[in-house]
Amino acid sequence: MIIVCKNTAPQAKIDKLVKELEAQGLQTHCSTGALSTIIGIVGDTSKLDIEALQAIDIAENVQRVSEPYKLVNRKFHTDDTVVDVNGTKIGGGYFGVIAGPCSIESEEQIVGCAKSVKAAGANFLRGGAFKPRTSPYAFRGLKARGLELLLTAKKETGLPIVTELMGLEHLDLFNDVDVIQIGARNMQNFEMLAELGHCNKPILLKRGLANTIEEWLMSAEYIMSGGNNNVILCERGIRTFETATRNTFDVSAAPLIHKLTHLPIVMDPSHATGKSWLIKPLAKASVSAGADGLMIEVHPNPEKALCDGAQSVTPEAFADIMDDVKMLCHFEHKMF
Amino acid sequence: MIIVCKNTAPQAKIDKLVKELEAQGLQTHCSTGALSTIIGIVGDTSKLDIEALQAIDIAENVQRVSEPYKLVNRKFHTDDTVVDVNGTKIGGGYFGVIAGPCSIESEEQIVGCAKSVKAAGANFLRGGAFKPRTSPYAFRGLKARGLELLLTAKKETGLPIVTELMGLEHLDLFNDVDVIQIGARNMQNFEMLAELGHCNKPILLKRGLANTIEEWLMSAEYIMSGGNNNVILCERGIRTFETATRNTFDVSAAPLIHKLTHLPIVMDPSHATGKSWLIKPLAKASVSAGADGLMIEVHPNPEKALCDGAQSVTPEAFADIMDDVKMLCHFEHKMF
Amino acid sequence: MIIVCKNTAPQAKIDKLVKELEAQGLQTHCSTGALSTIIGIVGDTSKLDIEALQAIDIAENVQRVSEPYKLVNRKFHTDDTVVDVNGTKIGGGYFGVIAGPCSIESEEQIVGCAKSVKAAGANFLRGGAFKPRTSPYAFRGLKARGLELLLTAKKETGLPIVTELMGLEHLDLFNDVDVIQIGARNMQNFEMLAELGHCNKPILLKRGLANTIEEWLMSAEYIMSGGNNNVILCERGIRTFETATRNTFDVSAAPLIHKLTHLPIVMDPSHATGKSWLIKPLAKASVSAGADGLMIEVHPNPEKALCDGAQSVTPEAFADIMDDVKMLCHFEHKMF
Amino acid sequence: MIIVCKNTAPQAKIDKLVKELEAQGLQTHCSTGALSTIIGIVGDTSKLDIEALQAIDIAENVQRVSEPYKLVNRKFHTDDTVVDVNGTKIGGGYFGVIAGPCSIESEEQIVGCAKSVKAAGANFLRGGAFKPRTSPYAFRGLKARGLELLLTAKKETGLPIVTELMGLEHLDLFNDVDVIQIGARNMQNFEMLAELGHCNKPILLKRGLANTIEEWLMSAEYIMSGGNNNVILCERGIRTFETATRNTFDVSAAPLIHKLTHLPIVMDPSHATGKSWLIKPLAKASVSAGADGLMIEVHPNPEKALCDGAQSVTPEAFADIMDDVKMLCHFEHKMF
Repeated sequence: MIIVCKNTAPQAKIDKLVKELEAQGLQTHCSTGALSTIIGIVGDTSKLDIEALQAIDIAENVQRVSEPYKLVNRKFHTDDTVVDVNGTKIGGGYFGVIAGPCSIESEEQIVGCAKSVKAAGANFLRGGAFKPRTSPYAFRGLKARGLELLLTAKKETGLPIVTELMGLEHLDLFNDVDVIQIGARNMQNFEMLAELGHCNKPILLKRGLANTIEEWLMSAEYIMSGGNNNVILCERGIRTFETATRNTFDVSAAPLIHKLTHLPIVMDPSHATGKSWLIKPLAKASVSAGADGLMIEVHPNPEKALCDGAQSVTPEAFADIMDDVKMLCHFEHKMF
Repeated sequence: MIIVCKNTAPQAKIDKLVKELEAQGLQTHCSTGALSTIIGIVGDTSKLDIEALQAIDIAENVQRVSEPYKLVNRKFHTDDTVVDVNGTKIGGGYFGVIAGPCSIESEEQIVGCAKSVKAAGANFLRGGAFKPRTSPYAFRGLKARGLELLLTAKKETGLPIVTELMGLEHLDLFNDVDVIQIGARNMQNFEMLAELGHCNKPILLKRGLANTIEEWLMSAEYIMSGGNNNVILCERGIRTFETATRNTFDVSAAPLIHKLTHLPIVMDPSHATGKSWLIKPLAKASVSAGADGLMIEVHPNPEKALCDGAQSVTPEAFADIMDDVKMLCHFEHKMF
Repeated sequence: MIIVCKNTAPQAKIDKLVKELEAQGLQTHCSTGALSTIIGIVGDTSKLDIEALQAIDIAENVQRVSEPYKLVNRKFHTDDTVVDVNGTKIGGGYFGVIAGPCSIESEEQIVGCAKSVKAAGANFLRGGAFKPRTSPYAFRGLKARGLELLLTAKKETGLPIVTELMGLEHLDLFNDVDVIQIGARNMQNFEMLAELGHCNKPILLKRGLANTIEEWLMSAEYIMSGGNNNVILCERGIRTFETATRNTFDVSAAPLIHKLTHLPIVMDPSHATGKSWLIKPLAKASVSAGADGLMIEVHPNPEKALCDGAQSVTPEAFADIMDDVKMLCHFEHKMF
Repeated sequence: MIIVCKNTAPQAKIDKLVKELEAQGLQTHCSTGALSTIIGIVGDTSKLDIEALQAIDIAENVQRVSEPYKLVNRKFHTDDTVVDVNGTKIGGGYFGVIAGPCSIESEEQIVGCAKSVKAAGANFLRGGAFKPRTSPYAFRGLKARGLELLLTAKKETGLPIVTELMGLEHLDLFNDVDVIQIGARNMQNFEMLAELGHCNKPILLKRGLANTIEEWLMSAEYIMSGGNNNVILCERGIRTFETATRNTFDVSAAPLIHKLTHLPIVMDPSHATGKSWLIKPLAKASVSAGADGLMIEVHPNPEKALCDGAQSVTPEAFADIMDDVKMLCHFEHKMF
């Protein structure tokens, strides 16, 4: 970490600060110049509170020079993490395709959808039982009944299931869920992250729509610091000034995540764009950018979907997308 | 609501859609032109799912023309809501000043801080017992013990207290808390919003850092639709490309909120900027923009604060800020 | 266009407004409901000033329902535009690769670079003679001398050249330039756009870093409305809150542009990210998303580049990128 | 400046880099730790190209610790700059109010408007002769004829005039203009900035809608480095995800600018919000935040304005706004 001292800072105060830092087991080096003195701090700075340092009256600005995350950091764990979901793998060359409806509506809908996405090549089934909705008047999911139907679809097809947890109070309903999804709006629900660090289930952590890559990795660090190493990251678009798409799909996240961390990343073009006709080109772009998987919304009848119909593709369209995805995965030497 | 049909839309499909809409008790009017047909929908459209409509194959785009919120809407409730916290009021001409440390650290700190902010003119005491922190390695608050100390400070000074709830699992600890704060990261924690709609405590709802004014009001609608009308909105800065301040303080929120809703709004320049020297000018700007109150972080010794020291002002600086705030409130005819 | 009238609007004023609109040759249809009256306006609304309409006291809000651009609109020109640069084509299945250094530094540098990018498969040479730099103290290009060197490289290799015009006062120097680039900062330099509409040279129009797709197309409309149909769009990243990359590369722009307009789009991952190691995955993602071409910065010795070294790749790295790009273009049936 | 070297960087390469930096007359200090070596660079780093440094293979990241601007920097010029426009001053305690229509439409309109804003207390007249418009089909100003009418209004009222220059090719028409405005879209039109550095006219430099405070100050540095010290900064809102206002009015810019530079800043709530009913609260907020002036659009008949009617206030509304602005200026000890 670097502390740039104000040019008005008295030497005595600088010396005092240096002593305090060294008392915490850190090494410091000062560069004194015409305009300012720079204190370079080396060692484990992850426990230093950057905001507390910024409050020091002689500090003009304080900057981190190393990442604040450790367990998720590629530097300290060079090999890719492969998340194994009862035999189906994601990461380290294994490609995962998570498909299914935004929300579970009926046994016929979810089981039918599961069979068709499996036939097209999906290896995970998604479906929402608890739905975050901006309006209190919108359909908010079948809740417990929805989870039962999802488990029926799992039994019928053998596909591992991925579904969102919206509150710790529902956790006991998730025992037979294979992958617990943390939605974008809960990416910084720290109580939930800390709690899920104590279970051993794979967690699919969606990026918050206004969160930086670094904040996203810090949320993954919460889960790993609790002891759970099975974290899958999911890019789903960020909020920008552009309104042509619901959010802006940050395809750069795939190569960036691979450089910064060993955890796998899947891409969700459905929520990112909110437009079904954009799913195919963006799914293909995701594979070519190096993603470890995809999350795609599929609905047997998008026009009648109780939620997010505009971004769902039909089973036929999904099969067509998968033809290209498989070809590109082959080109990227991904195992399917 | 407006549905613009594709210029390729066959009349039969348009007629079918119109019938379905009217079957839901809505009136429709079609404008057919050279390039497209526009279906105007009038009536209670709050239950229509805009995303489902966008999925209809003949729909080119769908736009709301009236606000999706009802209970919080100024149009249906023209008088200002005055939130009465055991006699201390906010809104409708009553100005509230909520001050105190970011986090509660010790009895001496919180009680001392409470006495000094009261002396300077604050009428609410704030202090965090449960702290949302980006890093799992940072100080996360004294939790239950912190709430006890806050209650001690309340007893000593008589100031009503405001503190953040981070998860429903802690709710029973909040019985003697006067105002429950929902933090920016939980603004769309819909399970929590729905639950707090069933209590009768005043709720201070912070704006999420990437949420629009409309989404913010929809979250307030969640609380009011549960039966709790005591909602206070709090602007605390939004995330933009600018890095000179931690967030961008959206001062326009004050007059906008007053036009769109009857609920009161307080402004928090401390979290918005992250810089203590910006608090005074932005607190003054807030009053002149018409805010109903302020939330300001005050710490007896910012340099030693366990959290957010950089944005905390000393009790002396707070008293100086209050001198100007009182003068400007007088100019705005606010009751203090 | 839609005008939503305030619920307080007197019928007489609504009738007066409708008359004024119809006097302009537009058809109107009113939908009167409990809360408001909606006036649907059909016809050529491109000359209506939406801001003037918003100023009308009875207007609550005014919304466009059809695109404000006409000549660039896919609806009125369904076939892809193929821009032919002295025989080298971009668009409609023809893929263009524009490569070269950020700025022209010497004859050896630009000629050497031109030969190596041509050998690797580039079909256009780029190089900056006039450089937009944030700091007045930074290197701002060799100007006229740089253009001479670029023309030498063109003679030596036969590659058509692309270079940026920073002010109309330099236009006479561009007679032998094949494609004139308008940089992101000049995307809304309307005087320049209007003037370039009167020349017949192909224009590469970069997207402004805070401009929407619609604003970008309106700038292309400026050029086309002057009579110049040879417009190539170039996505180079937009400004967001994310700081891990210099800008956020909006890969969705490729499929969006293809749906909205007939003009070709090339992608520039170099400026978007500012990081050379991200060029390969994002170049590949661009091809798979359907782009009509790429713009990539190549420098024989990035560490010694006078500008933008961090985002330039070496000729060797460029050749490696091109191997994958050619394979993916083949998969997309693009002519090379 | 700080260079953080990769933990894999060989000492020999670090030594070589240090030598090169010292050869440029800079002092360096190295901090070598477990994970990385940090090179602190002290001296005049304004000529160092941060991007070239980032391209060095051993550099992990490079960060500035001092501002890249010098002439505009408050550190090297502690007194406020007072811009004197033929006797009317802005900055250093002098408050300027620039008012008038968005565009000049007729002699009657501009002269009438000039008289009414002067009567209400404005000390500058604004009016657009050359108008930047997103659409090539919109009204783009009366151009040369507009400037003549503006000069007539100046003669009639004695108010100094402020108007926008859209291209250097029009510069000779601006001889009798008192303050040349550079619009948001031209904030980084570096050719124009450099040229205006050679004239001695006051320049009103608007902030670009996606530009940081630092980039804005670098554009002011362009003008000052040419020899022109008469620069007035103008905040007019930045582009964010929020759509309730046209742009987000960054009121923090006033105190930030005062800390970073000695140049005066005026605030333009009209363009920031696009809504006339927001002008009054935001004008008041600007004064209380410490602004040196205001820029407000006034039109005798907003509904008939040829441009930006929605954000223009009537002369009566302007007089009402000025009553409060004068009171608040008095409270801030601003000379009027």
